[in-house]
Amino acid sequence: MLRIAVIGAGRIGKVHAATVAAHPQAQLVLVCDPIEDAAKALAEPHGARTSADANDAFTSDDVDAVVIGSPTPLHAEHVLAATRAGKAVLCEKPVASSVEAARQLAAELATFEHPPVMVGFQRRYDPSIAKAQRLAAEGRVGRVEQLTIVSRDPAPPSAEYLAQSGGVFKDMVIHDFDEARFFLGDIVSVTSIGQKLDPALASVDDFDGAVTMLKAASGAVAVIKNTRHCATGYDQKVEVFGSEGEVVAENLRATSIQVNDANGSAQQEVYLDFFLERYADAYRDELTAFIDAVNNGTPVTPTVEDGVAALVLAEAAERSARTGTTVEVQL
Amino acid sequence: MLRIAVIGAGRIGKVHAATVAAHPQAQLVLVCDPIEDAAKALAEPHGARTSADANDAFTSDDVDAVVIGSPTPLHAEHVLAATRAGKAVLCEKPVASSVEAARQLAAELATFEHPPVMVGFQRRYDPSIAKAQRLAAEGRVGRVEQLTIVSRDPAPPSAEYLAQSGGVFKDMVIHDFDEARFFLGDIVSVTSIGQKLDPALASVDDFDGAVTMLKAASGAVAVIKNTRHCATGYDQKVEVFGSEGEVVAENLRATSIQVNDANGSAQQEVYLDFFLERYADAYRDELTAFIDAVNNGTPVTPTVEDGVAALVLAEAAERSARTGTTVEVQL
Amino acid sequence: MLRIAVIGAGRIGKVHAATVAAHPQAQLVLVCDPIEDAAKALAEPHGARTSADANDAFTSDDVDAVVIGSPTPLHAEHVLAATRAGKAVLCEKPVASSVEAARQLAAELATFEHPPVMVGFQRRYDPSIAKAQRLAAEGRVGRVEQLTIVSRDPAPPSAEYLAQSGGVFKDMVIHDFDEARFFLGDIVSVTSIGQKLDPALASVDDFDGAVTMLKAASGAVAVIKNTRHCATGYDQKVEVFGSEGEVVAENLRATSIQVNDANGSAQQEVYLDFFLERYADAYRDELTAFIDAVNNGTPVTPTVEDGVAALVLAEAAERSARTGTTVEVQL
Amino acid sequence: MLRIAVIGAGRIGKVHAATVAAHPQAQLVLVCDPIEDAAKALAEPHGARTSADANDAFTSDDVDAVVIGSPTPLHAEHVLAATRAGKAVLCEKPVASSVEAARQLAAELATFEHPPVMVGFQRRYDPSIAKAQRLAAEGRVGRVEQLTIVSRDPAPPSAEYLAQSGGVFKDMVIHDFDEARFFLGDIVSVTSIGQKLDPALASVDDFDGAVTMLKAASGAVAVIKNTRHCATGYDQKVEVFGSEGEVVAENLRATSIQVNDANGSAQQEVYLDFFLERYADAYRDELTAFIDAVNNGTPVTPTVEDGVAALVLAEAAERSARTGTTVEVQL
Repeated sequence: MLRIAVIGAGRIGKVHAATVAAHPQAQLVLVCDPIEDAAKALAEPHGARTSADANDAFTSDDVDAVVIGSPTPLHAEHVLAATRAGKAVLCEKPVASSVEAARQLAAELATFEHPPVMVGFQRRYDPSIAKAQRLAAEGRVGRVEQLTIVSRDPAPPSAEYLAQSGGVFKDMVIHDFDEARFFLGDIVSVTSIGQKLDPALASVDDFDGAVTMLKAASGAVAVIKNTRHCATGYDQKVEVFGSEGEVVAENLRATSIQVNDANGSAQQEVYLDFFLERYADAYRDELTAFIDAVNNGTPVTPTVEDGVAALVLAEAAERSARTGTTVEVQL
Repeated sequence: MLRIAVIGAGRIGKVHAATVAAHPQAQLVLVCDPIEDAAKALAEPHGARTSADANDAFTSDDVDAVVIGSPTPLHAEHVLAATRAGKAVLCEKPVASSVEAARQLAAELATFEHPPVMVGFQRRYDPSIAKAQRLAAEGRVGRVEQLTIVSRDPAPPSAEYLAQSGGVFKDMVIHDFDEARFFLGDIVSVTSIGQKLDPALASVDDFDGAVTMLKAASGAVAVIKNTRHCATGYDQKVEVFGSEGEVVAENLRATSIQVNDANGSAQQEVYLDFFLERYADAYRDELTAFIDAVNNGTPVTPTVEDGVAALVLAEAAERSARTGTTVEVQL
Repeated sequence: MLRIAVIGAGRIGKVHAATVAAHPQAQLVLVCDPIEDAAKALAEPHGARTSADANDAFTSDDVDAVVIGSPTPLHAEHVLAATRAGKAVLCEKPVASSVEAARQLAAELATFEHPPVMVGFQRRYDPSIAKAQRLAAEGRVGRVEQLTIVSRDPAPPSAEYLAQSGGVFKDMVIHDFDEARFFLGDIVSVTSIGQKLDPALASVDDFDGAVTMLKAASGAVAVIKNTRHCATGYDQKVEVFGSEGEVVAENLRATSIQVNDANGSAQQEVYLDFFLERYADAYRDELTAFIDAVNNGTPVTPTVEDGVAALVLAEAAERSARTGTTVEVQL
Repeated sequence: MLRIAVIGAGRIGKVHAATVAAHPQAQLVLVCDPIEDAAKALAEPHGARTSADANDAFTSDDVDAVVIGSPTPLHAEHVLAATRAGKAVLCEKPVASSVEAARQLAAELATFEHPPVMVGFQRRYDPSIAKAQRLAAEGRVGRVEQLTIVSRDPAPPSAEYLAQSGGVFKDMVIHDFDEARFFLGDIVSVTSIGQKLDPALASVDDFDGAVTMLKAASGAVAVIKNTRHCATGYDQKVEVFGSEGEVVAENLRATSIQVNDANGSAQQEVYLDFFLERYADAYRDELTAFIDAVNNGTPVTPTVEDGVAALVLAEAAERSARTGTTVEVQL
């Protein structure tokens, strides 16, 4: 049993605490959050203790590993403190607030021996996305030529959330950047068109829609389509087109019900909504891989370097969308 | 060019006249119907002449073949008259009003040399159904074990039509009986449950729904599900289950449009509706096969014997539904 | 926490032990099986104890409820012993080996006050099937007219299993009989055609395929299609056709992957296979309903009477298939 | 009956000749092509005459309208000659070899009264695409925000064809540019990444793949994904995403056959292949609209101006792909 502390009792912390508690090889021992009521709500049903101070996670002897779901500006600091204390780390995305901070984190981690550090791009562990990637990697569709990622949230977060989110590219599209790299490897240029779609978000200085093209070193091109709203729910789809065919990971729904009536034929379920439901299996399999890495020394993926790369793409996309030019990237 | 007369300007005559007129190897020369206005409506747009007397079709020298769409009680008489006049015949189902009359027709046809006589079970020529049968016959699903035919009309015909229809089994299910034989060959027993579903048809002495099981000589079992109404349109589907898999011919729709919205995901088109649209390609390919038989001597299918067999099953099903027993059949 | 003993460590016992252990409101305390190694394999990972004697489940003070997964001939005896000891019971299907034994059990249970007894027809709790039933019950498809249940096992069980299974109708189709009653209520007649499909099972005195028609008191008709093998996996589908439309609960698959290539477009996953995977959510929700019944006195469904009714249909179907006649049933 | 001459007996001329001949309101009277055997092959089955000289189409009194399918460099000249002779014109895309030539044509046409001139972007008349556009225009998906057009040929044309094609953007993607304008109206900028995918085409100075982003004046963004090859056939799909939902026009197939077997479930038909089959209904409905415009004065769509606009986008995309920059366009 890997004894795990979760730092942060917000919406992503909730996901991780539940995933840890339900995992047969993990035990939730501690939840840290300055708002202790939030920490208690996650910890008590599973017999875990709480603390208002994240440092308790690093100093407690009964903690083997730390899942970091604190606010983004604290990620790098928490990763360093945990690894210095000899704890394995699973850190939520983005691994730092900026490329600069992420690169500095990577550089510092390179200076000492430490347990595994994994970055929480859970989609790499989604059974459908993972299978699509495996099929593509095995050559099932020949030479991979064009990749399309659809990534739409069911509804925008609150204005407060948006104000501190770091912008749509670092907050939301970053998952898609990692996913593009998961399928295509190195990216050499980014062109993004940002959109202001929702009149209710007109005053927020951020885009709530974006279409982005990535050119890969391989010659393949990726398209990412994002919106902060989607009437049909949490739209998460990927299409990998190659010289011999195409693999598509379609959206998931809660039931297989279809209704045929005078209006036609319908799957009358929206897409699984929201990331907790949609990626429940992904979070579980991500945790399994993390536990394997800690226990058995299997390689960690995605790494801090993957986290840096996704941030590089996010900052490049932001620049492209703001300036209307294509931005070349070097990883 | 095969010069063709169509007898009967009712709804099925309309289908045949249009099919003949549009066929590159056929020419519509005559439409016969006692209601000459109806005949004219079909004939004139294509430059064909009309007659109130079906005999004109048999005696005209410029007629090579006759498509018989007259009322069922006249079918046998018209087939005989046409073949005696040396005309090839494509006769609508059922080939006669009763098994007895159909057997007598077959016996008389056996007494003289005559041009091809084909029976109008057009589904054998529907591209999807024909492909399903071909795949099954080629062994694509292994040993064929269970067959399911769904056959539902979009809405019941008028009370007048129903009164003279000969009953749902001879009028409607007869297509399904032929289709079952198309896939499974000889049938040895019939069990049918008739249903009175539509309150508006309560006073008609006929069923407006039926579920029928057929046992084939091969050991396979067919299920036929019928209703005289269907909210989603003309429901025409067949599933062939075998030891190695299943082939399904799904319903068709007018467009490929799908709408994803807050209610889920829908193909917002009902099934192609009605037989004119759904089986337009089938009628065309049926006519092509008929023309081939006439011009090149290719074998006719389905034959008058197939027409007899379908009637045998229809009468057996009627008996089964009326008595609540299983009826064994001998063809 | 409801403290639960599982009797029987065979394949269904395995399902229940895992479901209980994972349930947030249940605790697995005891697994009983004469083969104690089998019991240990299920109990030890969850810290539960084992016994070779089922009576330990009835006499232990720390057991609140018993899940009975013993061989069918022991079901009735175990249900009685458990309820007499004041334990709540969730009993696997069939509730007894015969209608006679099941009726006797029901009669004895009626003679004393006892905790809830629930019968394990888990499909009533499958999210898709349950939603289909709810939609139908709410009138979403109007008057329910025709029901189709497809129920195919991926591959036949061993010859030994088949020899003691009680026959395909009591062993396998009994789930479909309960499902038909779940959708249609009382059934008045049964007609079944049994099939001997698999040459490898030729010597077993049992059918390995069946097509069954049920007539409901409401006038609706159900068709059940069964085979002991299915190339595409565990085929579990239900279609509810009514005057205003149709609800279908389609098969489920492990991923949403679709591949488009030179052969067409494919969902390259077989159906979720086998009942453990397919009905994992159903077993969980069944257990939740059972716990609710025990803790809060909510009504139990399905009841022992439902278990009797399913057995009545199973015996009637067996008779029908053996004699070739329609069998009327009275519940 | 509109009496029509077809100029050009190549592959697109073949489509038009067949469409005209089969249309109930049109008559094919003349096919012009310098290779008279090619012209005869199209004309004779329909009783039309032939000429090696396109001028015969303009000077013949029995020609009401001309369908221009000559090589692109001749389009503008033929349109002018035909309209000056008082013939209505349906001209294949692109309407001229360059924006400059197209603008000059438009300017000359503006100097005199002439019968309708329609440009052959037949997709506007495809039943599925037309319905998607109508639904979007009616507000079915709210504010239109993101459009995706997938347009892939089943296999590249010959090297000779490619050499004189004018480049993939004018030859192939031009249909997609018109389609984007059909859905989104005015376009303000174009960013395109050209791809060299097929090793066999390495020596051709043209792209055989492209991903293009268009920014519309409305704020919506379109993505166009092109390849000169597609294993699954002629991939023609459009997705219109809006604030209230999404409309998708899916690919079409020849039959509705689905096969379920040990590999999963497949529609074992590739997409309808090639434009003749896929757009047969579109060519027919395009011709109907053209005939309506000639006979009844209904407005022509798409116009020569639409033809100019598509060329502007094609040249901008070529520039963008060659230079790696975003190109702003003014129509």
